[in-house]
Amino acid sequence: MAQSPGGPRTAPTRRHDTLALLATPDIDVWVATASAGGVPHLVPVSLAWTEERVVIAVDGASVTARNLRESKRARLGVGPTRDVVLLDVDLERCVEVDEDPALGASYAAQADWDPRGLDGYVFLVLRPRRIQAWRESDEIAGRTLMRDGRWLTR
Amino acid sequence: MAQSPGGPRTAPTRRHDTLALLATPDIDVWVATASAGGVPHLVPVSLAWTEERVVIAVDGASVTARNLRESKRARLGVGPTRDVVLLDVDLERCVEVDEDPALGASYAAQADWDPRGLDGYVFLVLRPRRIQAWRESDEIAGRTLMRDGRWLTR
Repeated sequence: MAQSPGGPRTAPTRRHDTLALLATPDIDVWVATASAGGVPHLVPVSLAWTEERVVIAVDGASVTARNLRESKRARLGVGPTRDVVLLDVDLERCVEVDEDPALGASYAAQADWDPRGLDGYVFLVLRPRRIQAWRESDEIAGRTLMRDGRWLTR
Repeated sequence: MAQSPGGPRTAPTRRHDTLALLATPDIDVWVATASAGGVPHLVPVSLAWTEERVVIAVDGASVTARNLRESKRARLGVGPTRDVVLLDVDLERCVEVDEDPALGASYAAQADWDPRGLDGYVFLVLRPRRIQAWRESDEIAGRTLMRDGRWLTR
């Protein structure tokens, strides 16, 4: 198992890097959800980060939307696999793409496409409950930055 | 939604690219699993591709190992989000890392670390049931390359 360049980061640095990553234009997120019967699903989609929420836009009839409406939860992976941010999130809101103009504008400002006007598409607003970040195995210790929706560091 | 560079690939090209990606040294995979109660889990780990199986090595007590032993299934994501391979897999075998020397040698030859000798670690041998590959939205059509464990193209 490899070491992180420069050694393991401090908690404040990891929080800073995490927030910078989530605010990156045109960034994608791996969204893992599960059916009530325990069948895992995984897709990459575009992400927006606004008011400490992750926002994704998907077809309301997709497996991801259905699983999230039913279970209210997902686990998200952002970044390359050797510099990851993992977020356990709860579904806060599911809105038609043209229902909340401010939300639509925030999403379109960060993502590289604009789902507004697309029939059947929804924004899923996801509230982080736990956030973890690590590069290599030397950063596994101290990987939890948020727990129960509260940052553990400034 | 963006277009793939050079336009959408043919099925044989996608199969070729997929096999080349899976055989890449030091490559990682996002592994999505779920508990029986429908709680999604997601972690990035190193991957080896041998005899048309994905092999990963994890702590036998990890959430990923537990979910896979119970449900027998996972969904895997490989590659960058704009050039992805998604695999729905079934657990074929779960073996202690020192139990099958040939398997251990295959894994260590491709991955960038060697779990052999690590107490409690297991190899999970995963058989693809469905494989999908796409770059951008213009490759969503024709994304399924394997169904029910059989390649749909040469």
